[in-house]
Amino acid sequence: MLHFTAADFPELEKVFRLNLINGITGFKSANLLGTQDATGHPNLALISSVVHLGSDPALLGLMMRPPTAPRHSYDNIRATRYYTLNHVHTGILRAAHATSANVAREISEFAACALTPQYHDNFAAPYVRESHVQIGLELVEELPIQANGTVLLVGHVRHLYLPPAALRPDGSLNLPAAGTVALSGLDTYYTAEPVARYGYARPGEPVPELPF
Amino acid sequence: MLHFTAADFPELEKVFRLNLINGITGFKSANLLGTQDATGHPNLALISSVVHLGSDPALLGLMMRPPTAPRHSYDNIRATRYYTLNHVHTGILRAAHATSANVAREISEFAACALTPQYHDNFAAPYVRESHVQIGLELVEELPIQANGTVLLVGHVRHLYLPPAALRPDGSLNLPAAGTVALSGLDTYYTAEPVARYGYARPGEPVPELPF
Repeated sequence: MLHFTAADFPELEKVFRLNLINGITGFKSANLLGTQDATGHPNLALISSVVHLGSDPALLGLMMRPPTAPRHSYDNIRATRYYTLNHVHTGILRAAHATSANVAREISEFAACALTPQYHDNFAAPYVRESHVQIGLELVEELPIQANGTVLLVGHVRHLYLPPAALRPDGSLNLPAAGTVALSGLDTYYTAEPVARYGYARPGEPVPELPF
Repeated sequence: MLHFTAADFPELEKVFRLNLINGITGFKSANLLGTQDATGHPNLALISSVVHLGSDPALLGLMMRPPTAPRHSYDNIRATRYYTLNHVHTGILRAAHATSANVAREISEFAACALTPQYHDNFAAPYVRESHVQIGLELVEELPIQANGTVLLVGHVRHLYLPPAALRPDGSLNLPAAGTVALSGLDTYYTAEPVARYGYARPGEPVPELPF
């Protein structure tokens, strides 16, 4: 067993530390964050920090990095209050990763990465046409984290678009049917195969096994 | 394309809505949260809401549900300030899922689910002996979310234990080598296979492909 302590981390080479600490939580979601500025210029960014906050109301969180780096997405969300999350799938991996390049504010990552902004139902933020699962959110709360200057954005799900094949009769999603990938660390994309599905666990009872 | 709006969600059957909204973010991490109370009684809970907050200092977030439900883990973290995260792997899926049963405070999920508390390096919270990747954290901040009463706990990574086979020379983790699984929604566990690894993206340059 390897052992690192908090005293070791500052001594690690920077890229090694970034790779290590970005990987230790386990698999992550890979989503494209679609926004636009007050004049309608679209922006797209790859994010792996989306977290479920609650189902009623339907709330999702995402982390934004400290304001020391240019944060076009964050500025756009604050300006318009609306944003989209779009699942990365196997057909758009390279284009999705390319959105993480640090381009100038006036350049749209959509155009630079050959992805297509799509507008539905008068929503004030662009979706990614190539994504199969698209979520439209409205900003409801911002929580700055003192410890490192990141910000948790809390969004209310206003719209959800998904392919019929990705929705099971009980409301659960079949993510492989949507081509959705998982991400580890900063750079590695995975496809996933289900190995077990379990029902609601009750004390003293065997955990029920469900079909996929 | 199926389309749900915010107005539809309250009308959905409750379990359908839970399944749907818990699944829309994409793949999630599956970790066991180890805690103990002030008198040393251990507790274990499955969580899928861990999020990377920063690498320097090494900070991880996790969401806690509103205080309307019993929250033994949260009470323990507040009492001791220390907790552990332990990757769920293919060998402990059923036991890990069973920790989500709602047992009485005096019952240890370790014992109820046949998992073993392990203490290393004088750390004041139990790890899961059966987990291959173990993280020891100290609580540094709590952020209550007004919109639904959940709480974001910010923890500083104090210890990290992992098997040599799971660490690549550049610091990135080989999660399949650790047996680590991904989770979707509330109940489906996945193994994952890498399909692409890309280097740092630079504007106007092709995205470099890296070996796994």
